[in-house]
Amino acid sequence: MGLTRIGLAGLAVMGQNLALNIAEKGFPISVYNRTTSKVDETVERANVEGNLPVYGFHDPASFVHSIQKPRVIIMLVKAGAPVDQTIATLSAHMEEGDCIIDGGNEWYENTERREKAMAELGLLYLGMGVSGGEEGARNGPSLMPGGSYEAYKNIEDILLKVAAQVADSGPCVTYVGKGGSGNFVKMVHNGIEYGDMQLIAEAYDVLKSVGKLSNEELQAVFSEWNKGELLSFLIEITSDIFGIKDDKGEGYLVDKVLDKTGMKGTGKWTVQQAADLSVAAPTIAASLDSRFLSGLKEERVEAAKVFKLGGFSDILSSQPVDKAKLIEDVRQALYASKICSYAQGMNLIRAKSMEKGWDLKLGELARIWKGGCIIRAIFLDRIKKAYDRNPELPSLLVDPEFAKEILDRQSAWRRVICLAINAGISTPGMSASLAYFDTYRRERVPANLVQAQRDYFGAHTYERIDMPGSFHTEWFKIAKQLKIRGHL
Amino acid sequence: MGLTRIGLAGLAVMGQNLALNIAEKGFPISVYNRTTSKVDETVERANVEGNLPVYGFHDPASFVHSIQKPRVIIMLVKAGAPVDQTIATLSAHMEEGDCIIDGGNEWYENTERREKAMAELGLLYLGMGVSGGEEGARNGPSLMPGGSYEAYKNIEDILLKVAAQVADSGPCVTYVGKGGSGNFVKMVHNGIEYGDMQLIAEAYDVLKSVGKLSNEELQAVFSEWNKGELLSFLIEITSDIFGIKDDKGEGYLVDKVLDKTGMKGTGKWTVQQAADLSVAAPTIAASLDSRFLSGLKEERVEAAKVFKLGGFSDILSSQPVDKAKLIEDVRQALYASKICSYAQGMNLIRAKSMEKGWDLKLGELARIWKGGCIIRAIFLDRIKKAYDRNPELPSLLVDPEFAKEILDRQSAWRRVICLAINAGISTPGMSASLAYFDTYRRERVPANLVQAQRDYFGAHTYERIDMPGSFHTEWFKIAKQLKIRGHL
Repeated sequence: MGLTRIGLAGLAVMGQNLALNIAEKGFPISVYNRTTSKVDETVERANVEGNLPVYGFHDPASFVHSIQKPRVIIMLVKAGAPVDQTIATLSAHMEEGDCIIDGGNEWYENTERREKAMAELGLLYLGMGVSGGEEGARNGPSLMPGGSYEAYKNIEDILLKVAAQVADSGPCVTYVGKGGSGNFVKMVHNGIEYGDMQLIAEAYDVLKSVGKLSNEELQAVFSEWNKGELLSFLIEITSDIFGIKDDKGEGYLVDKVLDKTGMKGTGKWTVQQAADLSVAAPTIAASLDSRFLSGLKEERVEAAKVFKLGGFSDILSSQPVDKAKLIEDVRQALYASKICSYAQGMNLIRAKSMEKGWDLKLGELARIWKGGCIIRAIFLDRIKKAYDRNPELPSLLVDPEFAKEILDRQSAWRRVICLAINAGISTPGMSASLAYFDTYRRERVPANLVQAQRDYFGAHTYERIDMPGSFHTEWFKIAKQLKIRGHL
Repeated sequence: MGLTRIGLAGLAVMGQNLALNIAEKGFPISVYNRTTSKVDETVERANVEGNLPVYGFHDPASFVHSIQKPRVIIMLVKAGAPVDQTIATLSAHMEEGDCIIDGGNEWYENTERREKAMAELGLLYLGMGVSGGEEGARNGPSLMPGGSYEAYKNIEDILLKVAAQVADSGPCVTYVGKGGSGNFVKMVHNGIEYGDMQLIAEAYDVLKSVGKLSNEELQAVFSEWNKGELLSFLIEITSDIFGIKDDKGEGYLVDKVLDKTGMKGTGKWTVQQAADLSVAAPTIAASLDSRFLSGLKEERVEAAKVFKLGGFSDILSSQPVDKAKLIEDVRQALYASKICSYAQGMNLIRAKSMEKGWDLKLGELARIWKGGCIIRAIFLDRIKKAYDRNPELPSLLVDPEFAKEILDRQSAWRRVICLAINAGISTPGMSASLAYFDTYRRERVPANLVQAQRDYFGAHTYERIDMPGSFHTEWFKIAKQLKIRGHL
């Protein structure tokens, strides 16, 4: 054989699928894994799935040397220490101008550290977010490469073919920006994904607990929603889920799934970065908190008992509701909440871009999320257009089209949340979205009181609405005097 | 003069006041500041405020040597680099067995790093949270010392006298625990403080915007509230604030204060630590987000214009309300929300204590917050008693007394939030508290759907409610088959 075009190291399911995808697009690929059985498994799959040009290697040296120069190797291994180990193993055999790409969910600062270390060896480095799960990796993911532009250019032709293809807007890949920007953008993508999943779960909860919809009805509702403005991968799979029967007993599988949600770190990072950058991201934070609370299953069971003894039932009210109206209201509430969640995520990306000088293009990011990734949705096209109309848009909420959509849906939105509150069904994501909207669109919020308190007890000073400058008032002394004189 | 008992370095207002407080309690104190005019100022104040035994020094060597062995020096300088600089300056003149105490709002890991570095020099170290603002420092703060127990014992007699004294529960100081636990506890104290201030601001907003209460009425309401279960420093100063007229124009000062809230970092850290420890702290997070959004004043003004053009007014409804009922409802909503916020803060402290092996006593922390600090309140006595009843209480929400209080208030709580939602007034803190409660007390939450989604697109597996084990379903393949057969 001649030299291959590219290499891939780390052959768990994601790695295998991405390798097969690359091979299927016509690029001969070398593959390597420390546990060599995975190498053979991948080559075997390549044969079965259409004699794809995948070449397996059991040792790193021959793996690296099988690739044409400048060599490009994608790693798909666990974030953290395994990435450093894989880099050490591979880079020992690589030469100046070669490139390593980390396709994992890595903390962006690790990528920046590694890019610098690699540069000292004359090697190039990219941190590339890959979204779409196993299926996306195999058939077309959304790719978010950031780091060395030179390295990106070396494999742009591959990425353009490997990425998901969207009819009206092209392949779901772009050069995101310098440094760890690719990882950062993927991290926020995942935070947004948390938000979407939480909002869908709340819609499900309200429809099921208040509207008493059966799984059949829920399947039909989400299937119907997937034909309109909510059209998206997550709504589609939600519809599918409600249609699947339990293979181990009676009824539907979703009802047998334990109500404990796992997580792997990117949602947490998103929330922590938002705090670091002074960006409010309450919908995303609510989705993270909901996962935390879901994990306290045993405590929740005990708490439910405590409140049952107090005469409190799980669902507070079960008066009959107009199902059709409820379904439509929930659909609108979900959509309006989703706009707020994306507004938070996009503003978080912009804040980081400004801090780091990455010059990220928000509209372009919305474009590459239109296909391949978990949050892919028709909705992202609206976001792209909003930023096309105004790249400096301070928030999606004030884009004329989104503003109108929110206004049209706000009555339903408020109805759903109040209904849930009165039924004892928590909708933390929808509530957080609405509070975010009602705070952001309000000229005057009660922060004047908080600032007055801070000046009272900590002399933190305050500004005034009617004159420039920084002021401090001796609130305590004045109040004391007023009290002495009987005026307080 | 003979040797003094203790030293204090860093003579901004907090430092000056704490030094005077210590001297007033009968402990001769040496004081030092890099800018020497502050030293003279402090000595001058000591003379004016009662010939207090405060001795000023203009150079670090004579300052350190003026203190009896083992020497103890409290630093009150800015967190971060200034602390390291002050330590370097002072430790050069100190001897084995001497101790430095950092009284600032320092990140707990910095304290742990410094404690280790000091130990190598044979010096002891404490990170001591000091709460109460300027007034507390002067007349009795709440003190949260953590680190070397030996060092704590060396100055326990001083701290017991300097701290705020509460009639039924003693001085507001205790040895918190090892390492950075004192700083950590102070950080969460501040996070809880953020939550309290936000909840009060929301109560104000609802009463003012929906209830149309005047400042006079607000002053009377908060003054009245301060006689009951809400009795606290923050409610008291809020009442004072509404009574203070503008000294630069017509009307009340609070209405002239710009609605932008500043912050100094501990609230942000609290939220980030909560995420790190998988602890839901949505009320505290909502207070932080509200500060962030308050800072976007110019954006909010523009957003308000955008929505006004859409026919949207700042306050959506202004139908007349029963004022007395509204005031009572808001009072109850505030109290119930507060319970949730403290439950979050206490559980955050416990999670960290378990992670670090600090063995913190939650009831004892509630006790030392009963006086001196910004969150001091009669309410803290209830928290102390809840942990006295059951030190292993998983959450304040399930303490029998708090559970009953919540049940008694939940109707009012739900009414207030729905009223606010329909009026377009955001109550993110109250909403987050209620959602927290309604999630925590619920046996079954819709996290089963989220976990099913995760297993669908990422093969993350799930548990079942009816059998042990970890399961994975080929959702996509099954759904595809069902679709082919026309069943989906």
